[in-house]
Amino acid sequence: MAIITLTTDFGYKDHFVGVIKGAIYSELADAKIVDISNEISPFNIPECAYILKNSYKSFPKGTIHIVGVDSEPTPENQHIAILVDGHYFITANNGVIGLITSEITPEKVVEINIPNPEHGSFPVLDVFVKVACHIARGGTLEVVGKLFNKLKDIREFAPRITENGNGIVGSVIYIDNFGNVITNIERHTFEAYRKGRDFILNARNKKITKIYNKYSDIINFDLEKDRRNGPGDLLALFNSSNYIELAIYKSDLNTVGGASTLLGLDYRDTITIDFK
Amino acid sequence: MAIITLTTDFGYKDHFVGVIKGAIYSELADAKIVDISNEISPFNIPECAYILKNSYKSFPKGTIHIVGVDSEPTPENQHIAILVDGHYFITANNGVIGLITSEITPEKVVEINIPNPEHGSFPVLDVFVKVACHIARGGTLEVVGKLFNKLKDIREFAPRITENGNGIVGSVIYIDNFGNVITNIERHTFEAYRKGRDFILNARNKKITKIYNKYSDIINFDLEKDRRNGPGDLLALFNSSNYIELAIYKSDLNTVGGASTLLGLDYRDTITIDFK
Amino acid sequence: MAIITLTTDFGYKDHFVGVIKGAIYSELADAKIVDISNEISPFNIPECAYILKNSYKSFPKGTIHIVGVDSEPTPENQHIAILVDGHYFITANNGVIGLITSEITPEKVVEINIPNPEHGSFPVLDVFVKVACHIARGGTLEVVGKLFNKLKDIREFAPRITENGNGIVGSVIYIDNFGNVITNIERHTFEAYRKGRDFILNARNKKITKIYNKYSDIINFDLEKDRRNGPGDLLALFNSSNYIELAIYKSDLNTVGGASTLLGLDYRDTITIDFK
Repeated sequence: MAIITLTTDFGYKDHFVGVIKGAIYSELADAKIVDISNEISPFNIPECAYILKNSYKSFPKGTIHIVGVDSEPTPENQHIAILVDGHYFITANNGVIGLITSEITPEKVVEINIPNPEHGSFPVLDVFVKVACHIARGGTLEVVGKLFNKLKDIREFAPRITENGNGIVGSVIYIDNFGNVITNIERHTFEAYRKGRDFILNARNKKITKIYNKYSDIINFDLEKDRRNGPGDLLALFNSSNYIELAIYKSDLNTVGGASTLLGLDYRDTITIDFK
Repeated sequence: MAIITLTTDFGYKDHFVGVIKGAIYSELADAKIVDISNEISPFNIPECAYILKNSYKSFPKGTIHIVGVDSEPTPENQHIAILVDGHYFITANNGVIGLITSEITPEKVVEINIPNPEHGSFPVLDVFVKVACHIARGGTLEVVGKLFNKLKDIREFAPRITENGNGIVGSVIYIDNFGNVITNIERHTFEAYRKGRDFILNARNKKITKIYNKYSDIINFDLEKDRRNGPGDLLALFNSSNYIELAIYKSDLNTVGGASTLLGLDYRDTITIDFK
Repeated sequence: MAIITLTTDFGYKDHFVGVIKGAIYSELADAKIVDISNEISPFNIPECAYILKNSYKSFPKGTIHIVGVDSEPTPENQHIAILVDGHYFITANNGVIGLITSEITPEKVVEINIPNPEHGSFPVLDVFVKVACHIARGGTLEVVGKLFNKLKDIREFAPRITENGNGIVGSVIYIDNFGNVITNIERHTFEAYRKGRDFILNARNKKITKIYNKYSDIINFDLEKDRRNGPGDLLALFNSSNYIELAIYKSDLNTVGGASTLLGLDYRDTITIDFK
């Protein structure tokens, strides 16, 4: 039995997530349902795209991902089902899987032909659950839709390379549970333009000249404890998803603050890198 | 194996929900446990009643619903188990299933005879889990309690019809993850008194004369994009549970705000409808 | 198939918890994964220790507990796997299971020999999941590590007994979802030094002379309703984990406030008990 995952902006307080799970179990008693996240910021397509890109691969091939963000169908926001990289995604055509499909060509995309009910402000329940259960039972995409070739890209996501190739203008795409600031600059982009040069990463008034591979890399364990870097110190690293991230070592947004609050950086703010 | 659901005000940080799941799995290795919500506002009976009413039906008949809100037993808040509409509820007698039992007569209600321990500030663990596992194993309600006929209603929930039948005085019963404001006025009540007439819905200083069926119904897709309604516009609709809801199209409480913040409407505030 | 639990400071918004579950299911299709809490305050060892101590026992023997708090390995924070009280814990050596191992001698402790990758800021995924799946398949600790005898204690957790034995100086170790203030004074410590005497518990400017066993014990149900104690009244009780807790009867942090806000008590603040 395939796994069905949920990635939505429904939150955990309302009954929406429970209702969806109940409906799936009513159709498929043996279903295995996993929450990827139900706390996407409401209608935030880039945030959802970032989370999907960085989580789907850890699931087995054949997993069915229900994406419940901005899912009400309109003439410009069709319901679609996609098979890409061996995974199924059921979503509205709003760019939310654009970070995946920009790198890997989908094997198949269909526009779902199960109509949303007239009184239908809950299409994840009324449509997506039905499609997910159909696929989980071994059904094909062709049965639930017709081939579709207008897949929307995600826009304003990639960093901009300066004209001379000596700089990258990136932006903040995500702030995580620790207040760490994730930029849209990936390791491979950074290295491709860096070409081994020194660099300065500018984040507000901070200048950073080194990017680490893990948080504790800023600690020199050969030094006495009171002479080391430690909690509260700023660093840049390639995070576990290979994006450049600005972090405060052992930060806590509720007490000492995180990189987002200490640097004053918010979603969509600019970060630049200058190569020498 | 029956599904066991949890609806509590325990939150997801504390160990309470984990402990309950551990205890259930210790008794029933094959149990399937589903969180409906563990973020009910503490001791908020109407909120819990709204969530239960709108979620239980999506689960299969025979599902066992543990309700952990205001569950410490007192002489006036007995532990009870109810079979209604084919579903089992294990709860304290505090009105929390009143929205269900006011519409559907329970098939059976028993007062649970498993005593709460003297050192017993966690009756969901000490009592409700035992009852749930008993039912899940096919046990009957009579074994865990004696018939009970003092089921508490939920009070102050229904809207008031004005004397002449020309108006409805409702109130806010729930604010959802998007800041949408849900009133206690159901579609069938509204239509029964409307009798086809025009109407004005008054919410603070806003006057609304149309109730939609889904959020995107306020968009006229025949218009150019910059001439349409869109994010930030107020609408009323019958929500997926068929209650009148005030919403801001594509709202986000953390950024642009939702209907609750923009209208200044909070839990228990009044909304009126005048029929012409 | 053993149960695998998660106790982390990853939160529910980011993709981290979903990624871990996907990775476990990819290795073990039949795994049963239970969240104990993913909302530990970032890097808060005592909080995590409190939650683990009070939850693990409700799971069956043989359960595998992944602890993802401050888990990046350093020369002073080794990755370890412990078998104690019939339960497996996979964690960094940071004191987080110190409340358990201070009471029960571990049956076995090994330092995990699966190396953290060089680009490894997500050791729970890269290391802990592998160890958990190994154990779940029936593997032994010796295969994944070598015996280890430098288990760190948790520090600054136990209350202090005054020199004459006539008092206890405790502190706040946890504030729960209801704003209830949990102290580090356990029932057995309290009773051992009390020796039947009267006492005064001092919390800020409040003096409390009775400790109840459950919340509703402060209500005298023989009195008329308007003459009783009730919502908003302060009490002390031994909570369901047998720690002294200060609570406001039927409190809600979002509305009337809880003991933490009303008493002005925060994590690490002092509470004293004087025996007469």
